Amino acid sequence: MSVKTVADKFVQLCRQGKNFDVMRTMYDPKIVSVEGDGKETAGQQPVIKKSEDFGADNEFHGETVAGPFYNGANPDQFVVYFTFDITRKSTGKRITIDEVGIYTVKNDLITREQFFYDGVH
Amino acid sequence: MSVKTVADKFVQLCRQGKNFDVMRTMYDPKIVSVEGDGKETAGQQPVIKKSEDFGADNEFHGETVAGPFYNGANPDQFVVYFTFDITRKSTGKRITIDEVGIYTVKNDLITREQFFYDGVH
Repeated sequence: MSVKTVADKFVQLCRQGKNFDVMRTMYDPKIVSVEGDGKETAGQQPVIKKSEDFGADNEFHGETVAGPFYNGANPDQFVVYFTFDITRKSTGKRITIDEVGIYTVKNDLITREQFFYDGVH
Repeated sequence: MSVKTVADKFVQLCRQGKNFDVMRTMYDPKIVSVEGDGKETAGQQPVIKKSEDFGADNEFHGETVAGPFYNGANPDQFVVYFTFDITRKSTGKRITIDEVGIYTVKNDLITREQFFYDGVH
């Protein structure tokens, strides 16, 4: 598959709310995930656990995904812009948070994801 | 200034439509600009000229800017998501195009910008 094929599949699944299907089927076993504070989580299961923990703290209502976007100088990457509609369970407050994700693809699997955002996600 | 101060000023000026003020006052003389196809343009004046050429081909109606966004593993960078409301002068067709820009800051000036998008911009 091309990076574009992987990226299109990624975006399609996210738009169906199937983010965990993405993680289970499209992530490399050794994926590295980098949060906004620079903290790295390594390995498919720990990365899935990180999202499960996020889900435990936040009720998820939906998301929008813009992209995928590309740059020829980084042919193994695609970029998306997410907005997430969530309620913080701690406060009951419904908010929208947004972020940019940069994804690196090798051998048709996502080997690295790096999120850029502002504040707490 | 911190990268955050530079990024906040950048976003503020863009939201006022002052993109050329950004290029004239916030770009390093040796800035490198990387378009979606990977092509690099080096130098403040050539980069400004590139935007002037874009303006010659496209009537600009407005833009939205989401961000700035950050990642602690890349403390010298900020990221934004743009949408541009333009009319292609060649066709008269009004469209919205969007892209992610990754900016690198050194000594309070932007030394590199890299755009990720899909299709022709």
